[in-house]
Amino acid sequence: MSKTSPGRFFEDYRLGEVIDHAVPRTLTAGERALYHALYPARHALHSSDTFAQGCGLPASPFDDLIVFHTVFGKTVPDISLNAVANLGYAEGRWLAPVWPGDTLSARSEVIGLKQTSSGQTGIVWVRTTGRSQHGAPVLDYVRWVMVRKRDAAAAAPDTHVPDLRAALDPGDLTVPEGLDFTRYDFAASGERYALGDYTKGEIIDHVDAVTVEEAEHMMATRLWQNTAKVHFDTRARPDGRRLIYGGHVISLARALSFNGLANAQMLAGLNAGSHVNPCHASDTVTAWSEVLDTAPTDAPGIGAIRLRLVASTEPGTDLRDADGRYLGHVLLDLDYWALCPA
Amino acid sequence: MSKTSPGRFFEDYRLGEVIDHAVPRTLTAGERALYHALYPARHALHSSDTFAQGCGLPASPFDDLIVFHTVFGKTVPDISLNAVANLGYAEGRWLAPVWPGDTLSARSEVIGLKQTSSGQTGIVWVRTTGRSQHGAPVLDYVRWVMVRKRDAAAAAPDTHVPDLRAALDPGDLTVPEGLDFTRYDFAASGERYALGDYTKGEIIDHVDAVTVEEAEHMMATRLWQNTAKVHFDTRARPDGRRLIYGGHVISLARALSFNGLANAQMLAGLNAGSHVNPCHASDTVTAWSEVLDTAPTDAPGIGAIRLRLVASTEPGTDLRDADGRYLGHVLLDLDYWALCPA
Amino acid sequence: MSKTSPGRFFEDYRLGEVIDHAVPRTLTAGERALYHALYPARHALHSSDTFAQGCGLPASPFDDLIVFHTVFGKTVPDISLNAVANLGYAEGRWLAPVWPGDTLSARSEVIGLKQTSSGQTGIVWVRTTGRSQHGAPVLDYVRWVMVRKRDAAAAAPDTHVPDLRAALDPGDLTVPEGLDFTRYDFAASGERYALGDYTKGEIIDHVDAVTVEEAEHMMATRLWQNTAKVHFDTRARPDGRRLIYGGHVISLARALSFNGLANAQMLAGLNAGSHVNPCHASDTVTAWSEVLDTAPTDAPGIGAIRLRLVASTEPGTDLRDADGRYLGHVLLDLDYWALCPA
Repeated sequence: MSKTSPGRFFEDYRLGEVIDHAVPRTLTAGERALYHALYPARHALHSSDTFAQGCGLPASPFDDLIVFHTVFGKTVPDISLNAVANLGYAEGRWLAPVWPGDTLSARSEVIGLKQTSSGQTGIVWVRTTGRSQHGAPVLDYVRWVMVRKRDAAAAAPDTHVPDLRAALDPGDLTVPEGLDFTRYDFAASGERYALGDYTKGEIIDHVDAVTVEEAEHMMATRLWQNTAKVHFDTRARPDGRRLIYGGHVISLARALSFNGLANAQMLAGLNAGSHVNPCHASDTVTAWSEVLDTAPTDAPGIGAIRLRLVASTEPGTDLRDADGRYLGHVLLDLDYWALCPA
Repeated sequence: MSKTSPGRFFEDYRLGEVIDHAVPRTLTAGERALYHALYPARHALHSSDTFAQGCGLPASPFDDLIVFHTVFGKTVPDISLNAVANLGYAEGRWLAPVWPGDTLSARSEVIGLKQTSSGQTGIVWVRTTGRSQHGAPVLDYVRWVMVRKRDAAAAAPDTHVPDLRAALDPGDLTVPEGLDFTRYDFAASGERYALGDYTKGEIIDHVDAVTVEEAEHMMATRLWQNTAKVHFDTRARPDGRRLIYGGHVISLARALSFNGLANAQMLAGLNAGSHVNPCHASDTVTAWSEVLDTAPTDAPGIGAIRLRLVASTEPGTDLRDADGRYLGHVLLDLDYWALCPA
Repeated sequence: MSKTSPGRFFEDYRLGEVIDHAVPRTLTAGERALYHALYPARHALHSSDTFAQGCGLPASPFDDLIVFHTVFGKTVPDISLNAVANLGYAEGRWLAPVWPGDTLSARSEVIGLKQTSSGQTGIVWVRTTGRSQHGAPVLDYVRWVMVRKRDAAAAAPDTHVPDLRAALDPGDLTVPEGLDFTRYDFAASGERYALGDYTKGEIIDHVDAVTVEEAEHMMATRLWQNTAKVHFDTRARPDGRRLIYGGHVISLARALSFNGLANAQMLAGLNAGSHVNPCHASDTVTAWSEVLDTAPTDAPGIGAIRLRLVASTEPGTDLRDADGRYLGHVLLDLDYWALCPA
């Protein structure tokens, strides 16, 4: 039995340690098609080579969340196999488009450690970078998770909580080389709204909803080679229910947000995110967005829009109760920057 | 909320109006593989490059129903989001094969309008054309749907019912350029029957059956970017059940028809079609065909066979009751032309 | 009804008969992606072009089981449509890697026949060869199945039981041209164990498990164009349950075996295999392996490891009861050779 990996426990991490995650992954037109089968994704830049070419790109790049899930999946065996909870994201940036045929690999640096007061668990902060076969970074982000200790009596490490920014500035965002929205085709994209049509504080209810099936979330999660047992094995949790990978909910909500945000074409920054409540098969997931900010960029015709994206199992755009706690039907509260026509 | 599209209502359509549907779609080897995973499709021309090359084509083109579903899916947000019923098809023609890497877009012209006697709904006829990135048409067909009115008090438009043909003539069909069945490989195709082996009135029970799952029909329907809520959201209908996209039943039945019609390789014409009863997950779908006609074509070794394709949830080849009404277990009654070795 | 194939019965086979199976199949990046969505497959050689290139190959070839399933699927309409049971495999060899764009076809020779004592069924042995579009064999194996007689009164054929080897010798295995593990990247592969780290008799519990869904096994089985009714049609068996294709369990178990056998990269030989008990949706499948043998090869840096792979619906590594019978929760007992770094 000694050859199988039980995953790392809290006391296995050292501040500053660099972990090269195993199994680089080549992504192809097959992953692209599966993404469209698994999520109601319709953003034109990721659906159509001709649309992407009209925006200055050589072809349609992968949906930015395919890149996120693939890199994230690589980290699971080393970071979150024994995680109790995925606590947050920060400082996430998409740095270059990824194309069919590219091979992604991932590396993480441990940038923070803090044992929790119970002494049973600790919080690990990692900064993960995904790279293509050319060595160029395509994505980096910080994630922190609560991880079990193997041995509650093991000594606590020195506490180091990294200093993370609440949100990226528009100037921190990378616009893909060549991207140009000056001749943007609003008829082909599906909606007529440009950056100036959105106002801070505006709420958009995306109306559509999807009732989720076990086969779907497991196929998606396997596609990203995410190995966390709780997503696949009904014996992994006391209640006998499989937990849906939080990233599945992110992709569902982002795809549903097409209806009202069809022109928020590419993700550029991930400011923050919380998986507020677990999602299970047979839940019906709906989504709404709040416009948090808008900003120009230096790139031709391109603006940046900062959005809160909320996934919920109930209609409506409520988020918290009177005491400021998330409502029980809220699944996800995500804060990101997207690129759209200015 | 104003930025999300509620879809069009009956009073939003004008006779002669042309609608360019959004989100052009690039199809790849991924969509091809998913088609084989979702349907028991085995027609050799769509399974094998070598078989297709033996028939004069450069490679295996997409299954003709992939083209149909993709074009149809593009029209849903503009035509059938508020449809009560999909009433019929006519004058459908596949005009050129579509290949991995091609990008399809769709345009519809409103060719008929008629308010129903209730005053609550109206019938909209559209002629839809799908085009490749080269601008060449690959498919056109007429479809009519019953659409809700936003306001029952809105004035009825002038009634215009288009003059549609009951069926295409064999001479109306387009044979793909280069297609040649003179050296057709009957061993590789799976059956030995050519056009002359089929007789008008012959009934073929395709024997096989598939019990349908929610995850499958939703993945298929999403793949075509079909956004009709009733297929995905258990809250969309009073009975809490998801309706299976009618085109899913068409593809299931067509794939099942391999057993007896393995040489009816390519679809060339869609004469008529009715989705007679709804299909739900856990239904077991079986199919039978009736030979309606056979005809030569001018192309080398190629004949045309006109077929009624019936999908049903019960074994047997009954269609109507004593009063001429469709039986409750009949799902689909489709009338099409296919190309086969002469 | 006469045009549909009812499949062959026992009395339809003749010793020495050669059957060319219909519908050659072109495999693409789409099938590759679906394999990763349907199974928790992580072996680096089949996940990553860069890893495969580091092992001397031009790109990542298809998972060897994709090749097996595709060839097997071709044989079903001719060999096992009326099979009562799939009894065994022997002398299976993977002879060359298969790449996206290749087209596979299959041919079987009847090498054994034996009527069973009941007189209702008989055993048919076939040696099946899968070939690429270039005519080169990529896989051959022997399989035997118990097939129904159409007419119990039909005369029994002369009994001929082929002489099959209990296991291939290491020298019988084909190492893909160019494969070279001398610069094998153990960090990228996910584990540090080479051939010398495994000892005969060692048991590896692969720990992970997957709860199986109907949609998943049907999509997989359709992808291989396997047409056996029992996998798809709830009416095909008296208990109303769909039987999961035995090959689905093989792929699940092989993928789960990554955890402990990440470096057993490529399958080279199939010595034997039994589908001991049926698998149904909602079963949770887990796997363990026993090291049966290890051997060097002449190829650079490459060793061969012979493994027993057992799939089970219960945790633990028990196989048989006190009387030597397989336990009721064992699904699969497979004996194969894999190539790994020496």
